[in-house]
Amino acid sequence: MNYRMITYILGWILLFEAAFLLFPTVTALAFGEEAIKAFLLTIAICVLASALLIFRKPKHKELRSRDGFVIVSLSWIVLSLFGALPFMFTGVTTSYVDALFETVSGFTTTGASILPDVEVIPYSIRMWRSFTHWVGGMGVLVFIMAFLPLSGGRNMHIMKAESPGPSVSKLVPRVRTTALLLYGIYFVLTVILFVLMLCGGMNVFEALCTAFGTAGTGGFGFYNSSMGSFSPFLQVTIGVFMLIFAINFESYFALLQRRWRDIFTTEVVTFLLIVAGAVGIITFNLYSSFGSVSEAMRHAFFTVSSLISTTGFSTVDFDLWPELSKTVLFFLFFIGACAGSTGGGVKVSRIVLLFKGIAREIRCSIHPKQVKRITVDGKTVEQSTVNSVFIFFACYVIIFGFSLLILSLDGANFLTNFSAVATTIGNVGPGFAGVGPTRNFAFFSPLSKLVLIFNMLAGRLELFPMLLLFSPVTWKK
Amino acid sequence: MNYRMITYILGWILLFEAAFLLFPTVTALAFGEEAIKAFLLTIAICVLASALLIFRKPKHKELRSRDGFVIVSLSWIVLSLFGALPFMFTGVTTSYVDALFETVSGFTTTGASILPDVEVIPYSIRMWRSFTHWVGGMGVLVFIMAFLPLSGGRNMHIMKAESPGPSVSKLVPRVRTTALLLYGIYFVLTVILFVLMLCGGMNVFEALCTAFGTAGTGGFGFYNSSMGSFSPFLQVTIGVFMLIFAINFESYFALLQRRWRDIFTTEVVTFLLIVAGAVGIITFNLYSSFGSVSEAMRHAFFTVSSLISTTGFSTVDFDLWPELSKTVLFFLFFIGACAGSTGGGVKVSRIVLLFKGIAREIRCSIHPKQVKRITVDGKTVEQSTVNSVFIFFACYVIIFGFSLLILSLDGANFLTNFSAVATTIGNVGPGFAGVGPTRNFAFFSPLSKLVLIFNMLAGRLELFPMLLLFSPVTWKK
Repeated sequence: MNYRMITYILGWILLFEAAFLLFPTVTALAFGEEAIKAFLLTIAICVLASALLIFRKPKHKELRSRDGFVIVSLSWIVLSLFGALPFMFTGVTTSYVDALFETVSGFTTTGASILPDVEVIPYSIRMWRSFTHWVGGMGVLVFIMAFLPLSGGRNMHIMKAESPGPSVSKLVPRVRTTALLLYGIYFVLTVILFVLMLCGGMNVFEALCTAFGTAGTGGFGFYNSSMGSFSPFLQVTIGVFMLIFAINFESYFALLQRRWRDIFTTEVVTFLLIVAGAVGIITFNLYSSFGSVSEAMRHAFFTVSSLISTTGFSTVDFDLWPELSKTVLFFLFFIGACAGSTGGGVKVSRIVLLFKGIAREIRCSIHPKQVKRITVDGKTVEQSTVNSVFIFFACYVIIFGFSLLILSLDGANFLTNFSAVATTIGNVGPGFAGVGPTRNFAFFSPLSKLVLIFNMLAGRLELFPMLLLFSPVTWKK
Repeated sequence: MNYRMITYILGWILLFEAAFLLFPTVTALAFGEEAIKAFLLTIAICVLASALLIFRKPKHKELRSRDGFVIVSLSWIVLSLFGALPFMFTGVTTSYVDALFETVSGFTTTGASILPDVEVIPYSIRMWRSFTHWVGGMGVLVFIMAFLPLSGGRNMHIMKAESPGPSVSKLVPRVRTTALLLYGIYFVLTVILFVLMLCGGMNVFEALCTAFGTAGTGGFGFYNSSMGSFSPFLQVTIGVFMLIFAINFESYFALLQRRWRDIFTTEVVTFLLIVAGAVGIITFNLYSSFGSVSEAMRHAFFTVSSLISTTGFSTVDFDLWPELSKTVLFFLFFIGACAGSTGGGVKVSRIVLLFKGIAREIRCSIHPKQVKRITVDGKTVEQSTVNSVFIFFACYVIIFGFSLLILSLDGANFLTNFSAVATTIGNVGPGFAGVGPTRNFAFFSPLSKLVLIFNMLAGRLELFPMLLLFSPVTWKK
C-alpha cells in the first residue's frame, strides 16, 4: 500500500473542499448571515489539515488496484468528515453523527435529511447542502484527476472505482481529457437548467439550489414542501432534467459527435421504457383521486423521474398513494439510473445484464452443449463482467438485509426500515412511512444512522470500495 | 421434445396419486365421514385419466435435459390439479383456485392456507392436507423413479430438477438405489417421530398429521392453534425434528456408513450456527415479555426451527413479537433449510457459496492477477456451479419483485404482501400482518393466488423447471 500517496491525495481533497466552501461563504455574505464565521473556520481547518498532508511529497506515484479503492473510499469519508463541520459550528445540528449524516447524504447525492424544518436554517447552509450534491454528482476524484498532476495509466483505477456502472469506457484515450469532457457536459447542462429556472420565476438562490440538486440527482429540499410550491412549468422542467442527468453521459458525448446510433443504447432505451411504464401505471392508479389525467400524470411523471434518477425531490406526499403505486416506486428505488450518470441504484445496465444472464442460463439448461455469449448493443460482454454484475446484485441484497437487521433494533416498523435502507443504499432520499417525503431520519439511533451513512457511501461508490475498506485482506502486507 | 414419454409419465403420476388418495379414504372410513365419496370419486377420475395416458406406450424412452424439466414441472402441476378435487367435492372450498392453492401449498410443503377454520372440515380432508406434505417433501418423481421401470442414466435429469439444492450427488452409483435409500431414511425418521408423538400423548390422527407435516417440512395445522395446544415435551420434540428434516440427508447417509467427518459439513455447521444465533437473539429480545428465559427460549427455538426448516407450525403468534425478532425471522424465510433436505428457501449451501463468491471477488479486486478457487469441505466448486448460485439468487429476488407488484393490485399493505411472497416462494407457510400465523390467504384475489401458486411451485422446484415451462425456447422444435 502506498500510504504516502494516499495521504497526499487526501490532502489535495481537503484543499479542494476548502475551495468548494467558498461558495456557501459567498452566500452567507450575500444574505448577511452569521454563518459566514462557521464557513471561514471550516475553510481554515481544511487548509491547515491539507498543508500537513501535502507537505511531504510521496517518493513514488505508483498506485495499485487496492490503493485506488482505498483512496476513493477514504476521500469520500474525509470529505464528509470535514464538510460536516459547518453544521456543527452554526448549531444547525447538535450531534456530530447528525451533521455527518446530512453531509454524507449531500455528497452521495442521496438527499435524506435529519432536519425536521429546513426553512429555519441559514440560506448559506442550505446552499452548502445543495452544492455538496453537485460536487458529489460527477465524483470528486474524477474532478481532481482532471487538474492534479498525477497523470499515468494508474488513475484509471480511481476513475473505475468512483464512476457508477458496471464498466467504464474512456470516451477518449486519455483519462484526463475524458474527465474534462464529462465535467464540461455536466457544467453546461447545469447552467442551462439554472437559466430555465430563472426564466420560470425562481430567484437566484432557488435556481442555484435546484440546479445543483437536480444535476447531482441529490434532492435536498430548500423549502419544507420540496418542489411542491413551484409552478407546473418549473416542476415539469425539473422532471425532465432529472431524467437528463440520469442518462449515461456517453450518450451526450455521442450526440456531440453526431454518432446517432450510439445515443439510444439498449440501456437508455430500457431506462426510458421503464419510466414510461411506471408513469403509465401510476397515472392510471391515481387519476381518480387527482380529478384530472393531466394533473395525475404530472405528479406521476415528476415522482417517477425523481425516484428512478434517485434525486428525491417531491411535489406531493407519495407515501399517501395506493399500494400499487408505492410498489412501483419501490421498484424504481432499486433499479436506479443509467451507468455513467450522476444517479444511483443498481443501474439499468446491470438490470439489463441480469435479465440477459438469466435468459442465457435458461437457454443453457435446455441446450447444455451450446455456448452462448451475451451481447449488448452488438458488443460481446465479457463473462467476468457478467459475473461481477450478479455478484454486485447479491452484495446489494445482502448489505440490504444486514442493514435492515440493525435498524430493526430501533423498533420502527418494517416499511420504515425497509424503505430507509432502500432509499439510502440507492441514494434516493425519501422513503415511505416513518421516512416518507414529509418526514425525516432524525429519530433513528446513532448506530442506525452510521449504518445508513455506510449504505449511502456504499451505494454511491458501487459497494466494493467500501467493502474493501472493511476487509482485512486490503490491509495485509 | 418426447411428448409421448412425458404424457406416459404423467399417467403414472396420476396412478400413484390414486394410491395416495387411499390414505385419506381410509381415514374417512375410520371416522365414518361422508367425505369418503369425494375421495372415491377422485380416485376414479385419476385412474381413468391415468389409463388414457398410460394406454399407449412411448416408442423410445430417451429423455433430454428439457424433457426432464418439463416432466418435473408438469408432474407437480397435474398432481395438484387432481389433488384439489376432494376439496371441491366435499364443499370445503367453493372456488377451484382456492382448492388448488391449498393443494399446491400441501405438495410444495408450504402450508399456507386459505381456510379460516380447519376444525370444521372433515378429518379425512385434514389428513389429505398433511399427507400431501409428506408426499411432496421428498419429491414425487424420485419416489416414482424408484419403482417405475424407466432405468437409465437420463433419470438423473429428473432427480436433479426435483431435488433441492445447487448440486445433487448420487449417494450410490445407481439413481434407483439412491432414491430408495433416501426414501428409506425419510420413512424411518417419520416412523420414529410418529411413535414419539404417540408417547407424548397425541392420538393416532394427531400423531400422523404431525409426523407428515414435520417430515415434509409442510406445516398445515390440523387445529386452529397449530401446535399451541400441545405439551412442552411435544413442542420441543417437534422443534428438534423440524431441524432434523431440514438437514441434508447425505449427512444421515454418512452417519449410517460411520463416515464421521462427512456428517458435519460446512453447510450443516452453518445451518446449526444460524439456528443458535437466531434463537439467542430472539430469546434475548423476548424474555421480558414471557417472564422466564426457558419459556422464551422454547418459543424462540420452536419458531426459529419452524421457519428456517420452512415448516411453518407455530406455538405462539410471532406476528406480535418486536421488530427485531420479526426481522430475524424474515432472514430465516430467505435462508431456508439445507440442500438435499425436505425444506425450502434459498438453501444454506447457496448462502455459503454466495458469501464465498463475494469474498473471492473482493480478494480478486485487490490482487487482480491471482486466480482463486472456491472450495467447500476441501473440494473445489466448479465455476459454473458458483455462477448458477448467483443467477439463482438474482432470479429469486426478481420473481419476488414481480410477485410483489401483482399482489399490490389487491391493496393489502406492504408487510402483508412482502411476507406473503416470501413465505410462499420459500415454502414456509405463515407470514406477518395480514398473513400472520392466526390469519390466512383467503382474502387475496384469484390473480394473486395464482401468482402465489406459481411461487410455491417455483420455490419447491428451485425456480428453473417453472421458469423453463414459461419460456418459449423450451417449446421450440
